[in-house]
Amino acid sequence: MNDLQIANSVAPLPIQQIAEKIGIDTEKLEFYGKYKAKLPLDLINEEKARQSNLILVTAITPTPAGEGKTTVTIGLNDGLNRLGKASIAVIREPSLGPVFGIKGGAAGGGWSQVIPMEDINLHFTGDFHAIEKANNLLSALIDNNIQSKTRNLGIDPRTVLWKRAMDMNDRALRTTVVGLGGKNGGIPRETGFNITAASEVMAILCMSKDLEDLKERFARIYIGDRFDGSPVLAGDLNAQGAMATLMKEAIKPNLVQTLGHHSAIIHGGPFANIAQGTNSILATKMGLSLGDYVVTEAGFGSDLGAEKFFNIKSRSAGLSPKAVVLVATIRALKYHGGKSLKELTQPDVAALEKGLPNLQHHLNSLSSFGVPVVVAVNVFSSDSEEERKLIVDYCQNQGVSVALSEGWAKGGEGCESLGSLVIQAAEKCEKSFTPTYQLEDSVEEKIKKVAHTIYGASGVEFSSIAKSQLKKIEKLGYGQFPICMAKTQKSISDQEKLIGRPTGFTITIREFEIAAGAEFIIPIAGEILRMPGLPEVPAAESVDISADGQISGLF
Amino acid sequence: MNDLQIANSVAPLPIQQIAEKIGIDTEKLEFYGKYKAKLPLDLINEEKARQSNLILVTAITPTPAGEGKTTVTIGLNDGLNRLGKASIAVIREPSLGPVFGIKGGAAGGGWSQVIPMEDINLHFTGDFHAIEKANNLLSALIDNNIQSKTRNLGIDPRTVLWKRAMDMNDRALRTTVVGLGGKNGGIPRETGFNITAASEVMAILCMSKDLEDLKERFARIYIGDRFDGSPVLAGDLNAQGAMATLMKEAIKPNLVQTLGHHSAIIHGGPFANIAQGTNSILATKMGLSLGDYVVTEAGFGSDLGAEKFFNIKSRSAGLSPKAVVLVATIRALKYHGGKSLKELTQPDVAALEKGLPNLQHHLNSLSSFGVPVVVAVNVFSSDSEEERKLIVDYCQNQGVSVALSEGWAKGGEGCESLGSLVIQAAEKCEKSFTPTYQLEDSVEEKIKKVAHTIYGASGVEFSSIAKSQLKKIEKLGYGQFPICMAKTQKSISDQEKLIGRPTGFTITIREFEIAAGAEFIIPIAGEILRMPGLPEVPAAESVDISADGQISGLF
Repeated sequence: MNDLQIANSVAPLPIQQIAEKIGIDTEKLEFYGKYKAKLPLDLINEEKARQSNLILVTAITPTPAGEGKTTVTIGLNDGLNRLGKASIAVIREPSLGPVFGIKGGAAGGGWSQVIPMEDINLHFTGDFHAIEKANNLLSALIDNNIQSKTRNLGIDPRTVLWKRAMDMNDRALRTTVVGLGGKNGGIPRETGFNITAASEVMAILCMSKDLEDLKERFARIYIGDRFDGSPVLAGDLNAQGAMATLMKEAIKPNLVQTLGHHSAIIHGGPFANIAQGTNSILATKMGLSLGDYVVTEAGFGSDLGAEKFFNIKSRSAGLSPKAVVLVATIRALKYHGGKSLKELTQPDVAALEKGLPNLQHHLNSLSSFGVPVVVAVNVFSSDSEEERKLIVDYCQNQGVSVALSEGWAKGGEGCESLGSLVIQAAEKCEKSFTPTYQLEDSVEEKIKKVAHTIYGASGVEFSSIAKSQLKKIEKLGYGQFPICMAKTQKSISDQEKLIGRPTGFTITIREFEIAAGAEFIIPIAGEILRMPGLPEVPAAESVDISADGQISGLF
Repeated sequence: MNDLQIANSVAPLPIQQIAEKIGIDTEKLEFYGKYKAKLPLDLINEEKARQSNLILVTAITPTPAGEGKTTVTIGLNDGLNRLGKASIAVIREPSLGPVFGIKGGAAGGGWSQVIPMEDINLHFTGDFHAIEKANNLLSALIDNNIQSKTRNLGIDPRTVLWKRAMDMNDRALRTTVVGLGGKNGGIPRETGFNITAASEVMAILCMSKDLEDLKERFARIYIGDRFDGSPVLAGDLNAQGAMATLMKEAIKPNLVQTLGHHSAIIHGGPFANIAQGTNSILATKMGLSLGDYVVTEAGFGSDLGAEKFFNIKSRSAGLSPKAVVLVATIRALKYHGGKSLKELTQPDVAALEKGLPNLQHHLNSLSSFGVPVVVAVNVFSSDSEEERKLIVDYCQNQGVSVALSEGWAKGGEGCESLGSLVIQAAEKCEKSFTPTYQLEDSVEEKIKKVAHTIYGASGVEFSSIAKSQLKKIEKLGYGQFPICMAKTQKSISDQEKLIGRPTGFTITIREFEIAAGAEFIIPIAGEILRMPGLPEVPAAESVDISADGQISGLF
């Protein structure tokens, strides 16, 4: 059975039954159909949240197919529930664009999925749409002001960094000229579209503490400059009230269920290469308020997702994970050992051994945060016994907790031993994490500390553009923000071909972006695509729906 | 109190209570929060639908502010319920774009509104978003194919008529160039965006009989031509399955309530100048299945909305209204009598008298359909007694049913006398309507019949482009489609400055568009804007939300 078939083989429980299990009164639920509900923000209890156990799932450097972090997250969550812990999975919302591209759905896999899988992968409760509209309303206000006769702010169209957003894999929108067609069409200028998940509105949603904070962050969005060089903020266009109004439902986390009928809260889905890559702070806190354990994940490898989870999200929200689960797969380690993607299903102990330094690197850099780490080997049917033993021994020999994770094939039952190790780790964790840098450090210093401690780089270089932007960032008063590194997920370094555990490399910061509303500085290392394209054979062509509403081709 | 304050002064009933009143089991509802629900299509009962009474609300030629058709529709619906009739209001969904432009909300007014007003005017149940995504997925597939190496259909980018859609007043998107930025960005070409309500996907939704029909219509969308001149359909890109999948919830009508706690079904919202301008066929049939009366409306004046309601929608769906309510306002008639917009609140019997021929024209052209007409004078506090008497006498003197409609100030109570006249009319209506043209007529003949019978034009001229397109339309086999006239709503003619009752004018068809999926031919008479812009002071700037979620500035 494929993922969609497995998902459809389990009858979901009415969402009020799921909610009841975690103590939510049905009256509190805002239903979206029978199996989805929005949760009001007053369910957050800061004191309870501080007492609960936050478990972060991250991964080694992934192959293009991904290493099953979401699957492990959901499986582990169901495993913890089987072990008697009140655990809630808190994860990101999938982006619609890639569903019709190459990737298919993103709601876990096999017997570790969240359902209703089709809805979650399609429009869900409309959060992405609301984000897109808030983003694009600001765009419309900008272009309207640029052509305004009576209320012109003097925005220099050449400096406008704010792009429109669309949740679609559509490469033709990467670079566009808008405002053509004569006077009727406004003032022509070059701009483009980001996929919604890569927008600052998404990043802001995930950083916000409440509706008021969301609105204030919107007002502080840095759009571009006036002709006189002074900065223009969204607040200068009075955009924040309408933007926040558009987000009045989207700010509320969404409740669904896992295939094991346990609670899963899904909210926000920022990219992990260009943004912070984790679900909303509000969703995490809500999970911690309603359960004793929250299992959550951060996008891509630990160099991207986990680093940002600690230094940006946890610091801002006052959170500290009690344990980190590092997902490794035998196939990815063989890839880092030099095998091609096509060869990964063939047993190859030598390649696996050669790839282990990638795992080792992630273990080392994670140790800098001072939080216990458990390795989860996400098993595939193509793994050999010998390969599995090798990786388990490798970890145990250096005293690292390790368990096989069989969530795909067995759901929560396949994650019980992983769950036991996680509970042990969490119970013995007594202190808060150690950040990689201080907010008071200069932007340059922050980047160097991440590059050295997390990537193992031997140095950092700044382009001349980046150097002059650094001055501007300090001048605009954004120097105290944390940094949100934008780099390839394919390598620990900033060069995607350097797989395994590269050493002796330098990180090159080509330029900076400013996310003044989300409150971080984005140092750009390498080519980062914020609008994907469709492949030669788009997945959309296989997606179908029958006359009675049965969907096929989503997987 | 403004509309938002009035709407907020009434506590809505839980939507299951509203549903219960019209015999819908709670189990059948798909909740969207507490006060909105989607209705499954199996609630449609074709036989019951044929027996119920369909009441169409249309209007004289409107001023830019609109003459309150939706307000009359909702008020009349509540009035009919007060008179003991099981009546359901079936109306269009408002477009989000204009809410932030100049217009504010569009969910009725005063004490004749549908609630929750904010939700209905913002994202509602996400139908517009789904339409936009289905539209834009097709766009992405087109541009992906144009740059495809292995599966290129040979689409000539210069001929692609299909545009992207966005529900936003954003003039800078009217004309764009996409695909810039080198190889990475696809093949550059000129294109643009329509506001979502003006998209063919919206038109198709409103014409579809079921999910299968929707999908088949998507497959038949005419996109443009190949370099060899042959037509390319959406089906050639295998787009229809994914497009229909995106629409699986959007195809279901939405249930909300009026301020009088009666049922209102809201579904679909196509433009009335460029598309058919009425809610979905599915929603109308669902209303007729669940109630004995359905009060529905068609956009703009009767020359646009009502003509299309009869000749396109009713013909295709096998519907026939039992009565037509023609909404007139004293202010609009004074406008047609030559007064400026600013002078309309001043009593002016002479101007009113001078404007009456506009009303007379709509009465005459509506009589061609052979369905009884009731005039509803939608009263404003600025009307004088003398003015009201004049218009009532004018109608009564020629035997036309007429009533004052006080829905804004008094809700259903203010529409009881109108309701009584409507019931009388419906009860005596025994035959189906007479269409203006036959489907077998040539496209040219259809246009001439509408121009003569409905507009009172003395002739029709075709540009040379239009003439050559006519040949192409017949060649492509689309000649049997009904026509969906695109012309200004500001005049009965195609020249917006010809207010009142113009005579001796000629209609000029400049060009044609083909909506092969919606199944109509769009003759374009005059400049039709499919993407509005924002005004100098966008309404968005006044919209705000407080920390506890109270919205202000929507009206």
